[in-house]
Amino acid sequence: MLRATAFAAPISQTPLTPLSTLARRLLPHRAALRSTAAAQMSASHRVESDTMGPVKVPSDRYWGAQTQRSILNFDICADTDRMPLAVIHAFGHLKHAAAFVNTQFGLDAQLASAIQTAASEVAAGELDDHFPLVVWQTGSGTQSNMNVNEVISNRAIEILGGERGSKEPVHPNDHVNKSQSSNDTFPTAMHIALATQINAHLIPNLTSLADCFERKAHEYQHVIKIGRTHCMDAVPLTVQQEFSGYVRQLRQAVARVQRTLPDVYELAIGGTAVGTGLNTRIGFAEQVTKKVAQLTALPFTSADNKFEALASHDAIVSTSGALNCAAVSLMKIANDIRFLASGPRAGLGEISLPPNEPGSSIMPGKVNPTQCEAVTMACAQVMGNHVAISIGGSNGHFELNVFKPLMIFNALQSVQLLADCARSFEHNCIAGLTVNHDRVQHLMTESLMLVTALNPVIGYDKAAQIAKKAHEDGSTLREAAVELDAMSGEDFDKAVVPANMIGPK
Amino acid sequence: MLRATAFAAPISQTPLTPLSTLARRLLPHRAALRSTAAAQMSASHRVESDTMGPVKVPSDRYWGAQTQRSILNFDICADTDRMPLAVIHAFGHLKHAAAFVNTQFGLDAQLASAIQTAASEVAAGELDDHFPLVVWQTGSGTQSNMNVNEVISNRAIEILGGERGSKEPVHPNDHVNKSQSSNDTFPTAMHIALATQINAHLIPNLTSLADCFERKAHEYQHVIKIGRTHCMDAVPLTVQQEFSGYVRQLRQAVARVQRTLPDVYELAIGGTAVGTGLNTRIGFAEQVTKKVAQLTALPFTSADNKFEALASHDAIVSTSGALNCAAVSLMKIANDIRFLASGPRAGLGEISLPPNEPGSSIMPGKVNPTQCEAVTMACAQVMGNHVAISIGGSNGHFELNVFKPLMIFNALQSVQLLADCARSFEHNCIAGLTVNHDRVQHLMTESLMLVTALNPVIGYDKAAQIAKKAHEDGSTLREAAVELDAMSGEDFDKAVVPANMIGPK
Amino acid sequence: MLRATAFAAPISQTPLTPLSTLARRLLPHRAALRSTAAAQMSASHRVESDTMGPVKVPSDRYWGAQTQRSILNFDICADTDRMPLAVIHAFGHLKHAAAFVNTQFGLDAQLASAIQTAASEVAAGELDDHFPLVVWQTGSGTQSNMNVNEVISNRAIEILGGERGSKEPVHPNDHVNKSQSSNDTFPTAMHIALATQINAHLIPNLTSLADCFERKAHEYQHVIKIGRTHCMDAVPLTVQQEFSGYVRQLRQAVARVQRTLPDVYELAIGGTAVGTGLNTRIGFAEQVTKKVAQLTALPFTSADNKFEALASHDAIVSTSGALNCAAVSLMKIANDIRFLASGPRAGLGEISLPPNEPGSSIMPGKVNPTQCEAVTMACAQVMGNHVAISIGGSNGHFELNVFKPLMIFNALQSVQLLADCARSFEHNCIAGLTVNHDRVQHLMTESLMLVTALNPVIGYDKAAQIAKKAHEDGSTLREAAVELDAMSGEDFDKAVVPANMIGPK
Amino acid sequence: MLRATAFAAPISQTPLTPLSTLARRLLPHRAALRSTAAAQMSASHRVESDTMGPVKVPSDRYWGAQTQRSILNFDICADTDRMPLAVIHAFGHLKHAAAFVNTQFGLDAQLASAIQTAASEVAAGELDDHFPLVVWQTGSGTQSNMNVNEVISNRAIEILGGERGSKEPVHPNDHVNKSQSSNDTFPTAMHIALATQINAHLIPNLTSLADCFERKAHEYQHVIKIGRTHCMDAVPLTVQQEFSGYVRQLRQAVARVQRTLPDVYELAIGGTAVGTGLNTRIGFAEQVTKKVAQLTALPFTSADNKFEALASHDAIVSTSGALNCAAVSLMKIANDIRFLASGPRAGLGEISLPPNEPGSSIMPGKVNPTQCEAVTMACAQVMGNHVAISIGGSNGHFELNVFKPLMIFNALQSVQLLADCARSFEHNCIAGLTVNHDRVQHLMTESLMLVTALNPVIGYDKAAQIAKKAHEDGSTLREAAVELDAMSGEDFDKAVVPANMIGPK
Repeated sequence: MLRATAFAAPISQTPLTPLSTLARRLLPHRAALRSTAAAQMSASHRVESDTMGPVKVPSDRYWGAQTQRSILNFDICADTDRMPLAVIHAFGHLKHAAAFVNTQFGLDAQLASAIQTAASEVAAGELDDHFPLVVWQTGSGTQSNMNVNEVISNRAIEILGGERGSKEPVHPNDHVNKSQSSNDTFPTAMHIALATQINAHLIPNLTSLADCFERKAHEYQHVIKIGRTHCMDAVPLTVQQEFSGYVRQLRQAVARVQRTLPDVYELAIGGTAVGTGLNTRIGFAEQVTKKVAQLTALPFTSADNKFEALASHDAIVSTSGALNCAAVSLMKIANDIRFLASGPRAGLGEISLPPNEPGSSIMPGKVNPTQCEAVTMACAQVMGNHVAISIGGSNGHFELNVFKPLMIFNALQSVQLLADCARSFEHNCIAGLTVNHDRVQHLMTESLMLVTALNPVIGYDKAAQIAKKAHEDGSTLREAAVELDAMSGEDFDKAVVPANMIGPK
Repeated sequence: MLRATAFAAPISQTPLTPLSTLARRLLPHRAALRSTAAAQMSASHRVESDTMGPVKVPSDRYWGAQTQRSILNFDICADTDRMPLAVIHAFGHLKHAAAFVNTQFGLDAQLASAIQTAASEVAAGELDDHFPLVVWQTGSGTQSNMNVNEVISNRAIEILGGERGSKEPVHPNDHVNKSQSSNDTFPTAMHIALATQINAHLIPNLTSLADCFERKAHEYQHVIKIGRTHCMDAVPLTVQQEFSGYVRQLRQAVARVQRTLPDVYELAIGGTAVGTGLNTRIGFAEQVTKKVAQLTALPFTSADNKFEALASHDAIVSTSGALNCAAVSLMKIANDIRFLASGPRAGLGEISLPPNEPGSSIMPGKVNPTQCEAVTMACAQVMGNHVAISIGGSNGHFELNVFKPLMIFNALQSVQLLADCARSFEHNCIAGLTVNHDRVQHLMTESLMLVTALNPVIGYDKAAQIAKKAHEDGSTLREAAVELDAMSGEDFDKAVVPANMIGPK
Repeated sequence: MLRATAFAAPISQTPLTPLSTLARRLLPHRAALRSTAAAQMSASHRVESDTMGPVKVPSDRYWGAQTQRSILNFDICADTDRMPLAVIHAFGHLKHAAAFVNTQFGLDAQLASAIQTAASEVAAGELDDHFPLVVWQTGSGTQSNMNVNEVISNRAIEILGGERGSKEPVHPNDHVNKSQSSNDTFPTAMHIALATQINAHLIPNLTSLADCFERKAHEYQHVIKIGRTHCMDAVPLTVQQEFSGYVRQLRQAVARVQRTLPDVYELAIGGTAVGTGLNTRIGFAEQVTKKVAQLTALPFTSADNKFEALASHDAIVSTSGALNCAAVSLMKIANDIRFLASGPRAGLGEISLPPNEPGSSIMPGKVNPTQCEAVTMACAQVMGNHVAISIGGSNGHFELNVFKPLMIFNALQSVQLLADCARSFEHNCIAGLTVNHDRVQHLMTESLMLVTALNPVIGYDKAAQIAKKAHEDGSTLREAAVELDAMSGEDFDKAVVPANMIGPK
Repeated sequence: MLRATAFAAPISQTPLTPLSTLARRLLPHRAALRSTAAAQMSASHRVESDTMGPVKVPSDRYWGAQTQRSILNFDICADTDRMPLAVIHAFGHLKHAAAFVNTQFGLDAQLASAIQTAASEVAAGELDDHFPLVVWQTGSGTQSNMNVNEVISNRAIEILGGERGSKEPVHPNDHVNKSQSSNDTFPTAMHIALATQINAHLIPNLTSLADCFERKAHEYQHVIKIGRTHCMDAVPLTVQQEFSGYVRQLRQAVARVQRTLPDVYELAIGGTAVGTGLNTRIGFAEQVTKKVAQLTALPFTSADNKFEALASHDAIVSTSGALNCAAVSLMKIANDIRFLASGPRAGLGEISLPPNEPGSSIMPGKVNPTQCEAVTMACAQVMGNHVAISIGGSNGHFELNVFKPLMIFNALQSVQLLADCARSFEHNCIAGLTVNHDRVQHLMTESLMLVTALNPVIGYDKAAQIAKKAHEDGSTLREAAVELDAMSGEDFDKAVVPANMIGPK
């Protein structure tokens, strides 16, 4: 742990921060890229062609004519919103599996082998620089499917000693896309990408956060604190009880996401253009699915209904609904944490959060619940993404939904936001959280709501009078009870015992 | 069935419409109500009191002081947005069950019996006129819980021969609300109401709509039609295949809603004020839940974590997510239906919908896809409601979420909208839908996209040239193929057979 | 003012609550209505007919065949979601104006006069019981336009001594709907209704709430309190300064809504079926608009482009955007108020809210910020409604948007929610709000963030050390400053003066 | 223009595509970046420090300790979601202006000059590689403010011959941030960035798209086509009339965005930590604003109320509302275009869109409305972003809204999406759109809805009978009219003249 309690670390002892995560932030921005790119461009280009004619592409890139046309035609948020790499990598697995299966259906074994090698490189992220397309392209993702076909085709050609752009001996459509259509491959890649990211990142990170809260709950199991309802003082509970609600929320969030996964495991592959499977072969769908399952170690199945799998993306909407629900949960939890940590002197002050950074550029010594802020911002984003996904899902027409890139772009961002935030929140906030015993004890014992313990003894109406009197006078409940002749001090002491108020009798 | 094919019914034979559903629409509106109410008011009132003092209530109503205060303090959309009756009826079951169980924990048997009788009347809808409160009250629903307590108390007093407003021998808090708090009863009623409405209306109606589509699909299983992707002509499929996608969507919608129900079956009762169960007894939660399950014939369980059950409503958000997904599905389906039925002469015209009413006040003879319009409007509402619910769910603080009435109001409206729309859409639209064979056949056979069948024969690039040529010339694909020397007419005829294009080989 | 300070009112002196607002809540619910309706129904019916044939309608209602068909065909949320009366009343003004103008274009003066009389009754709410249709009907609102045409026709026939249902001498289409189409009348009524409600209720109520906050701000202008950023203690400001932010938000909310009104003042009337004005006369649009403006005293204009006015409802989306923004503002304000009032002993406790009702059915004496809760729930609803409206607005096709009833239903609910909440929040909460001077003073003076005043004196880094030390030791800033030899106590006292920290130098 | 009519361009003549937009897509992806970065990292680092202690930073970067801490603490979507460069550049202008003004308030002229130079470089994008922070950081944007302070400080130190990281002679807080706080600078940068992007890109692009539609409308002003309401055949209008609706929508979209700009022009600067202006000087706010206005050539003003400007971001919510409305408009327009272009043989086929790329990886020759798809996906995103922004806006507390980075991230993406889509849609779709005269003429003349012209001649009911008969028989309206003895053929011909149906008489 890098951080000590707020303000507490002697400055000289604060360790130097490690460089381990530095590399990733040394990203070039647009300006730098362009000059680099321009330098590369001056080098050379080659001519590729498609059914619409020839087009120039940079000679050091594997993509072909259709990718290049998309670059030219869709200059939309080109610096920021590119097709998520998780989709590209998923395509790698899919094309690998398709080539593998196609050998049974007439694909030359040597070509298949080269395609599989190239596809594996795509899956492994080795060719990431060859996927320049943006999210805001055709709504079927056809251009990204063709980007993949072109890159694999050219890379396979290279492996086989051929010439880039020649389409010989590996044709992007006839070989790499054999038995496939963008209409079934793109949704297949969507599902592979989403399932992979959820299993690899979201579920473990949310689970780990829940575990962390559970450990904290256990650590403070004997601390009784004031409850708050309507943001107002209420009857007491233990810190463990309060935190157990968060744990339950997070475990349910995981369970809800998991319950949506069977739909995501269904793959559209085999539907080809409209779901019929035209130009594919019986058994192709099932075998490709099986191979993808093997490559990814996830239980993918061939979609029950290929028409639905192309024309709608209810599975994505449904999973996004579970992500939205997880965001709702995290928003509530992070809000609680920041309010409980508010202060240090004019807030609730029941807990302290680890100070990770100076909090203010003008107010010296201020430490803020910044992790809670990142989390709640991310939750708002996930909730907004869910609306975008729902709108996209509702606007499919006939045999094809054409909001596919939008939907997977948002779904994957939501997954990563929640996964990364869960990890950051755990390690940079919850793990270092401490409960301020004295403050908690003080607030609890002076609460007027302990009067609730008197309900079964003297009735609601009389108990209410005692609370009112104590509030008016600024006195204790005991004093008010005695003064109102409601009961003796001894009886009060027997009746009002916080430790007896934290469960049913 | 009331309706014949569009325009086809000889006017003289159109049957008189039945009066069966008329009654429900004879609702008074505000103006009428007020004069009626004013008349009643002039009659008399009695004085009720609570911990804040006395208050006048109309003498012919069972509610008491706290309900009356809420009427005065929350004059917000008072003519339209009242606490849903489903919540009130659910409270009836809950209070019945609580009284039943409380006899084991000190509640006098005679009082309990009267409470149970009164609560049953509430559950049965017999006292609906005594629940005047709006949704926009306290966020815990406390005032509606007290409304229920007061009505049952006064009704039970009446049953036992006492005087309304006397709180003797049945006190709203000490007896009707015994072992309970608004904080656990209101979310319990939310869950009972939601589970009940979903099981009674939504699931059967969506299932019935899916069945109807399945019958239609079967009826037209041999009709091959043009597919449409990107709204453009694509390769063919059968009507059955197309409709099977809708069936799958609807069956999945049902399954997704059902998957959320276990969370809804969890009841908060027993948590009392903050989730600890203070002032209740060990076993109370489980026994009340069991009794509610018996009264409603639904598998309710005692909530796994009462703190979570009060402080968050992720279960509602999750179910709303499934409703949102169902809305997305229905929006897609209803849009398809209206576009396929567009025309009669300048649209797609593939199907005809039953004409249920004159469509235009200016264009005579116009028949519109009005059921599709009602459905899609309702879907937009459900999607909006989901956002409201998500915002409400995310804003809980500490031990209590105080967006409860908002959340259940929206969730129940979404359920009813989807349930009613599914029924109306089925009976007034899909059941009477017919496929226009000639039009469908005509559009399919002249499609250029049949060229796709040539991909495995002559390759993608050559096939594309044929399609381009036919498009330019306005010729048939066969003519273009022959003219381009791509293949003979005979080979074309062997390769391009729509019936062979609707599945893998 | 009904309410005293929390707990403070001797019960015997609490005045009896007035009965003035009681009447409105004596609404019958479904069960009661049905029996009433059934009773009426048994009485009798008559036969009306339209282009589709005859249909039975209740004899005591003015509506005709098309309305009746809609009742039968759209049994969707029929107990709750009816076409807003504001739309019906707006239609009254419109039909009045159209008949008035139509006398210049061939409408018989006597018929016109009867139509105007009947239409005025509709506008005045006298015929509210004759508009039974639901929101979830045809998306053009045609059935409600016909409902209005039929009611006015039959009422005018009655005035002229004819027989209901005879369409003689006043025909619903040929006379009442003359020169009109649902496609222009319904959006016209939408705009009239929305502009009317905004001007009559929303703007005055928001303005009044802003005024109330301004008075409170003035009342506490000299109270210096601690500021809070990131929910953490920050530098001080006055109560007036803090509240001035709310005032500004509310005044801007009003201004933003007003800026959208010119679009709403544009009326579609004159566009008839597709915007061309077919079957209407040159000058009709302008003259009807002028007459409507006169009847409503609002500056309506003839829409700049009738095609846009039918095919899209961007004006509604835009106004809803302003309502959404107002909801966002109110949510922030109401949240602040409830957090500032949290306590009484374990919260911030800076202000006290008037206790309007007992707050808990189990915790005696609890008073909750219930008005804030109603407000924030309403804000969440307005935000959800905005999404529904936006989805509806985006889904128009060709010459007509068919999400009209959905859009106006939501827009009018948003207006009323905000208007009613603003009034309720003002009268039941803000007007009675008091600042707890002692508490405010105590929290402010012990704040560590007063250290910020030292930045210009000793620099940010040194000031931060002082704050850290005081936090660690639990000491005052002054003590820490002296102990660290940063400055003398005298210099500290000169530098750190809260009253000097509430503005630039 | 790159593209010819669909299919029409002889392949050999298709020009090679220019390389001009290639450079931008040659973006490295993560993998590549890391290796580059890792290489750089191995080089060296230096030690920077802040109030929490020392920290290592890469020696070739200008940022300091607080930036580095943020990199370490907020590893959330670090590969994709970085603080928008528009915000960084806006900060450049702001810091330039602040240094300029601070010379009047004690800032050494030489230091100020170096700061201004460094700040200008930031504004010009020359230091983009030195801003590595993500959106998901502290909700006040403090870390990005400090990133700017640190970069400018170190760059200014360098200019003045000092040592990076020494804070001498230019301190990031005491000099660069002088008279400022993150709490006022970050919202100021938000407003500058948003106003700049809207003026530079959104307004001109939307205007240009409207102009393009207007030219198309003019080009086809004499083409009469069938109207469609409820997606069903309706009465005729001209292409110009139809397109004029789109023009109006787009011009209003521009006007609505412009109406929100005065709020965006209000700058928070001068409010410092909580809005009071503590530690700043009278006149600072106004003078900095004036200087920013000069640097950006936009009419910025000092915010009317600094408390509101920090604690809420209603101005952003309001502008986002206008962007949402523009998205709603564009969604409608793009949907119309794609449906009107549907076919080529089984759709509406009224217009043809330029074929920009092969449309299908399986269906040869298919050309899809891909620009419409990009546009509608982008619109869904803008609508989702608006929800995220609204949620963020509603969740501010007390003196500071801490959803700032989320809000500006989404608002800027919405602006760029709409701006880029408007440009792409215009150049790649609408400019090349052609109307298919024959098809349009054919559909119009066979429409049954021309019967509407008979309403004023023979009444609505009789006209309806004619339409019904023609529909049933498949005959023309004229034949049906004569056969039903409704009128003579000559009278029909006189009454039904499409050219007479496109306006009022």
